Amino acid sequence: MVKHFEILATDGRARAGVLHTPHGDVLTPVFMPVGTQATVKAVPQRDLLELDTQIILANTYHLYLRPGDELIARRGGLHAFMSWPRPILTDSGGFQVFSLSELRKIDDDGVTFKSHLDGSMHRLTPEKSIRIQENLGADIIMCFDECPPPTDREYNEIALARTHAWAARCREAHRREDQMLFGIAQGGIFPDLREQSAQFLTALDFPGYAIGGLAVGESKEDMLRVLEWMDDALPHDKPRYLMGVGEPTDLLNAIARGVDMADCVLPTRLARHGAAFTHAGRLNLRNRAYAEDERPIDPECDCYTCRTFSRAYIRHLLHAEEWLGMYLMSIHNLAFLLELMRQARQAISRGQFAAFAQAWIARYRGNAS
Amino acid sequence: MVKHFEILATDGRARAGVLHTPHGDVLTPVFMPVGTQATVKAVPQRDLLELDTQIILANTYHLYLRPGDELIARRGGLHAFMSWPRPILTDSGGFQVFSLSELRKIDDDGVTFKSHLDGSMHRLTPEKSIRIQENLGADIIMCFDECPPPTDREYNEIALARTHAWAARCREAHRREDQMLFGIAQGGIFPDLREQSAQFLTALDFPGYAIGGLAVGESKEDMLRVLEWMDDALPHDKPRYLMGVGEPTDLLNAIARGVDMADCVLPTRLARHGAAFTHAGRLNLRNRAYAEDERPIDPECDCYTCRTFSRAYIRHLLHAEEWLGMYLMSIHNLAFLLELMRQARQAISRGQFAAFAQAWIARYRGNAS
Repeated sequence: MVKHFEILATDGRARAGVLHTPHGDVLTPVFMPVGTQATVKAVPQRDLLELDTQIILANTYHLYLRPGDELIARRGGLHAFMSWPRPILTDSGGFQVFSLSELRKIDDDGVTFKSHLDGSMHRLTPEKSIRIQENLGADIIMCFDECPPPTDREYNEIALARTHAWAARCREAHRREDQMLFGIAQGGIFPDLREQSAQFLTALDFPGYAIGGLAVGESKEDMLRVLEWMDDALPHDKPRYLMGVGEPTDLLNAIARGVDMADCVLPTRLARHGAAFTHAGRLNLRNRAYAEDERPIDPECDCYTCRTFSRAYIRHLLHAEEWLGMYLMSIHNLAFLLELMRQARQAISRGQFAAFAQAWIARYRGNAS
Repeated sequence: MVKHFEILATDGRARAGVLHTPHGDVLTPVFMPVGTQATVKAVPQRDLLELDTQIILANTYHLYLRPGDELIARRGGLHAFMSWPRPILTDSGGFQVFSLSELRKIDDDGVTFKSHLDGSMHRLTPEKSIRIQENLGADIIMCFDECPPPTDREYNEIALARTHAWAARCREAHRREDQMLFGIAQGGIFPDLREQSAQFLTALDFPGYAIGGLAVGESKEDMLRVLEWMDDALPHDKPRYLMGVGEPTDLLNAIARGVDMADCVLPTRLARHGAAFTHAGRLNLRNRAYAEDERPIDPECDCYTCRTFSRAYIRHLLHAEEWLGMYLMSIHNLAFLLELMRQARQAISRGQFAAFAQAWIARYRGNAS
């Protein structure tokens, strides 16, 4: 059997590794920019390559509804359709069905929902989600799961049973051998449920495991506690993917607890709202304080935005609602997170991760959401 | 005295030349992309350079209101503010005062108007327009003028007297020797008024002359007739700038009548509405016919968009209202016009412009607006 994941170095719970995919290797820990509708918002593909983006995420729910997974399959799959030569991960559509659509009915077999685009009715089941993801053709695909509020014990028990049954059906339905299917562990903030989820999924022997149901309202302490339980409970030789986390300090804290992969819309969404990551915390570039500020967003950043443009110019673009403002901010925020991940990998390889993360977070201070 | 403009070749009325500016030479005929608010909409500066954009236009009215010409002056002028190393032309603000603002009062001294941004009251006079344009620091600046409807004889007579008086005051007020101040000829579709305007402005000895008041509702035949009168009436050794024209066949027809420079929002505006220039006419990429079309927008185009992406993908982006769609379309439409200008210059140099333009237009056919 092909070995998909190799750990190159460990440092405490933190790990540096490499994930082998049909579209190339991914060095972990890795942050995956989100390209919901087959484009990372406001960032052209060649800019993503220039930033050395290793892998991007795309969205099953959105692409199923528009332009349609069968159309994308006829066009040669998502890589060819969007001209992206590197690895792609698709989520299962579960999270969006629950958060975006007008949900009509959830039962043990699947979910019936109304499209947020045109009101048409659709049904997703574990088998359908896998078929869509096979049509899209990402390198890594996800099991269809249910993501309940993390602190609701009763709902988590019901949803976990369903998520586990659906994971087994996804495993069974999945045919494409060039795709890795990851299981998704749920269980909210409850240690016994998380433990149970890890055991159930591990028995199904997935090539990787996602940690779902976090970063949706629980406290930071709860999130970090769950990550430690999961590090203990999940197999150490498989990649762990923390879904929906992109705040820099959260990423470092997650890596310190054995997380290898993460994705989030945060860097590009913040960018569109005028907020930039810097080593000294977040800046809101719309602020009057930057109206005549000649400095780049972050003097330590080497991205096109910071090499070329002043805070004053970017502030003007944001106030004028010009697309260039969103673009320059998005480029920068992605560059910042991707560089942070490179530094994290180096620190792990040198056995200095804890000190690195502590110093980095102390400087970044406070402004985390 | 410095020679700002040299004619390198002529072919009938058409001319190929070079315009010398403090930020470099501009080969003519040239199309100037419009960067209204100190950015060409949806196109980063490095993409403009990659397209070999020689000169861009920026807007006095918009930049005066936001972020303010004095702020831009303190930041080192428009080139430094927006990190654009090549030539810039600013218009006088006159056209926008008449078209965008809630105009309050026009008198022989100037114009009082209400900002379209916040309703604040402002006044522009010839002297104020020049001072703003000196603050912005473009290589080429324009006289403050009045642009009446081209077919209204009475209004054109009144406006022309004012435009001429204002041109003399602009000439008088202008101090910066590193900027070329162009006069703007008006006179609607009336040969005697156009003749009168050319004579008046020529007597003021500007380093270049714009042809204003066209492409605002008159017929194509009227526009071309005016261009022929202006070619006869304006000095042949000075550049002629046709304001507000960007349709490919119009550009070729204007070049055939002695026009050296033109600007228009058309390529970027069409892009945002999903329309692309191709050698076979305009395509509306939102059309269902392109949903699974693997071809690039224009197989003969060498831009990033056409080298990389299919019509099917671009159609998806446009329907999903993704920024990348506007970007890819804008890049292409600009690349298309800039390449057309390169071909026009070559054809003039070879003495084959008429045949080139005729063949090009015959193929492009019909879809012109």
